[in-house]
Amino acid sequence: MDYNSIMTTLIKNALMIPMTEKEHYERADILIKDGIIESTGKISVEADELIDASEMIALPSFINAHTHLSMTLMRNYKDTCENLQDWLSEIFPIEDKLNDEDIYWSSLLGAAELIESGCTAFADMYFFAWNTVKAAKDAGIRGIIGQTFMNDANDARYRIREIAPRILDAIGNSDMFRLDAAVHAIYTATPDCYETAADWAASINARMNTHIAETRKEVGDSIAKYGKSPVALLDSLGIFSTVPTYGAHCVHLSDDDISILADRGVSAVHNPSSNMKLASGAAPMMKMRKAGMNIALGTDGASSNNNLSMMKEMNVAALLATISEMTPSAARPYDILEMATINGAKALGLENRIGTIECGKDADIVLINTADVNMTPLNDPFSAVIFSADRKNVDTVFCRGRKLLEGGRLLTIDKDEAMAKTRERWEEILRR
Amino acid sequence: MDYNSIMTTLIKNALMIPMTEKEHYERADILIKDGIIESTGKISVEADELIDASEMIALPSFINAHTHLSMTLMRNYKDTCENLQDWLSEIFPIEDKLNDEDIYWSSLLGAAELIESGCTAFADMYFFAWNTVKAAKDAGIRGIIGQTFMNDANDARYRIREIAPRILDAIGNSDMFRLDAAVHAIYTATPDCYETAADWAASINARMNTHIAETRKEVGDSIAKYGKSPVALLDSLGIFSTVPTYGAHCVHLSDDDISILADRGVSAVHNPSSNMKLASGAAPMMKMRKAGMNIALGTDGASSNNNLSMMKEMNVAALLATISEMTPSAARPYDILEMATINGAKALGLENRIGTIECGKDADIVLINTADVNMTPLNDPFSAVIFSADRKNVDTVFCRGRKLLEGGRLLTIDKDEAMAKTRERWEEILRR
Repeated sequence: MDYNSIMTTLIKNALMIPMTEKEHYERADILIKDGIIESTGKISVEADELIDASEMIALPSFINAHTHLSMTLMRNYKDTCENLQDWLSEIFPIEDKLNDEDIYWSSLLGAAELIESGCTAFADMYFFAWNTVKAAKDAGIRGIIGQTFMNDANDARYRIREIAPRILDAIGNSDMFRLDAAVHAIYTATPDCYETAADWAASINARMNTHIAETRKEVGDSIAKYGKSPVALLDSLGIFSTVPTYGAHCVHLSDDDISILADRGVSAVHNPSSNMKLASGAAPMMKMRKAGMNIALGTDGASSNNNLSMMKEMNVAALLATISEMTPSAARPYDILEMATINGAKALGLENRIGTIECGKDADIVLINTADVNMTPLNDPFSAVIFSADRKNVDTVFCRGRKLLEGGRLLTIDKDEAMAKTRERWEEILRR
Repeated sequence: MDYNSIMTTLIKNALMIPMTEKEHYERADILIKDGIIESTGKISVEADELIDASEMIALPSFINAHTHLSMTLMRNYKDTCENLQDWLSEIFPIEDKLNDEDIYWSSLLGAAELIESGCTAFADMYFFAWNTVKAAKDAGIRGIIGQTFMNDANDARYRIREIAPRILDAIGNSDMFRLDAAVHAIYTATPDCYETAADWAASINARMNTHIAETRKEVGDSIAKYGKSPVALLDSLGIFSTVPTYGAHCVHLSDDDISILADRGVSAVHNPSSNMKLASGAAPMMKMRKAGMNIALGTDGASSNNNLSMMKEMNVAALLATISEMTPSAARPYDILEMATINGAKALGLENRIGTIECGKDADIVLINTADVNMTPLNDPFSAVIFSADRKNVDTVFCRGRKLLEGGRLLTIDKDEAMAKTRERWEEILRR
């Protein structure tokens, strides 16, 4: 383990939503031993730490299955763009100026934001990722780190040879991290880049993280260039059969695309705020669910959202599904909670370790305070978490039994320092 | 005045967004004297209270132009309904059981939620409204209180005779409140009910608050029954020329409807969360704006949202406008801020007193903390408030110069008591 945890923690009298079934349990206790969930139910043992959760909802902590953590740097920057392409053209020149320190501090700030919204695991895609590993280690959260690929196979081989080892070195022997292949998108990477990255990922038992069908333009351009949709193109390259894949956005999918993704076991990572804010569109929630696809949830980066709150993202996901399908059945509160927990774990291949509150799993747990004006009366705990709650209700967060947040205050991150350093570096970047 | 305020408050070094123009001012000072904004700019005077706002955004506090404050009681209740009509059929039987105490405590809880999200003025439509007046007075916020009408003209005359005086009596000589006519909707009130209510409202210099074109079903039924859309029906009755009107929802409007509303100076009160959650639809933001309509913002009640946070509502309004019109130009952050401030004041006829930070206006001001992880770096203050901020960033709130919230803590409401009483009464209601 990466830290010295206390031996045992007993969470008493929580309203527990274990996410193993569509049930909640009143006055449930959870015993954590050396970072692992030892037992749940009615528990009477002496523990090193006792937590009174009688006014708390206990959930598995959230999994942000698609983000660019260090893009907190560019929060609210060039926010007047009309669409994804215009915005990327503003962002790419900034990205050329970034360095290690920039990425470390902005990743740490992003990690703080994740923890404050009850999230302890993230799948990342960005540059200089060894710094993001270091920040996530310092924060005490777990991460699936993307080795980012763009351009062609030659460039991919260069990155595999020169960059991936630096990230693997930063991960070291920690089992809280894994390196995946993160190919940006079919409009920034060539087919042979995808193939090279997929072969490499398969060779190290990793997965593939990529943006798929985010905008109508991406799909149109793909058909014009390749005669195929992005999904059909990646499938024809054999990517999905080479390596387990999770695709961010998945907004503009045809019925055929959905069939392919469902057949190949590709997970969709839904990013509702980003898709709404950039006018990309609404992912076909009901069709994807009906096809049996696994759908996870992500915030995308703070520069296209413009925050990393999983609490807000769950609310937006529920509202968007309802309005875009014109029925609340499109995604009920429990369905959204699944996306933010166990479905995220499945997308990342971590379902045996996190995503539910179950004996033997890692103790990644969030306690949400119901003793607040916006949570009274509670009535329906699923609805309360999705529709009423916000970041202010997130009280306590554990990652593998280690307490990262208590009474809404960060324990592992010096918030003032992370803010000051990020601000300072951003001002400096604009002058570079 | 209703309270003993200190004489002068000096807010120093705020990032001020006065909402008089699309500008923000760095390091601005605001001097409040006896509840009124005395001056803004660089101010060096001795004040009874000095507030360091060097890490704060100062905005006019928000105006929730459509809510049912005491419906906090029914938060997250019967949340599995498929549409507005099904949900109302669950809610109406509960409403038959309510009493004065229920309404007082749930209104006080609702007022707490408003203040915590930076809001100090609301337009309400509900029963037993004298209790809502009492709660709002105790909370220190201002309210436009609806005398609710349903059924026919006879019933309207009864309510004018028997109920309105009780509300007016509760208001007394306070100028922080006004009684308006709040006719529920064309599917619950007859044409002669509307006429009677409008004549009465005109006779007391009040306005008309009503739900308009919330669902497709409402419009279809109206055309089947009256041969006219709800807007055309109300216009043909002369309602809009008898009394200034603000209509909640305004989702399903034809081009003709929009022309009528714009011509008659009817304000729309947009309720994006409620319209999304109940699958009602998306209001035609661009067409309404293009027609020059005044568009305000409201949360609707906590039983169809399921919270009263104006911070969340602004975020959802921006996202919904962008996705439903497929362009971020549909409503930019500054446009949304206008809806939540000066446009709300205009809808309620209070634009000479509140809605902007200007000399001579009442000091209804919110300070939003930018020294937080989700607000760093700030970059664009308009985007930051709309897309990054949440209730946790709301630091300080003034209503007519009186401080209601400080460091995110309520000063005028005993939150624990309001929660306990509301919970207790709700459990009792379910047994009645």
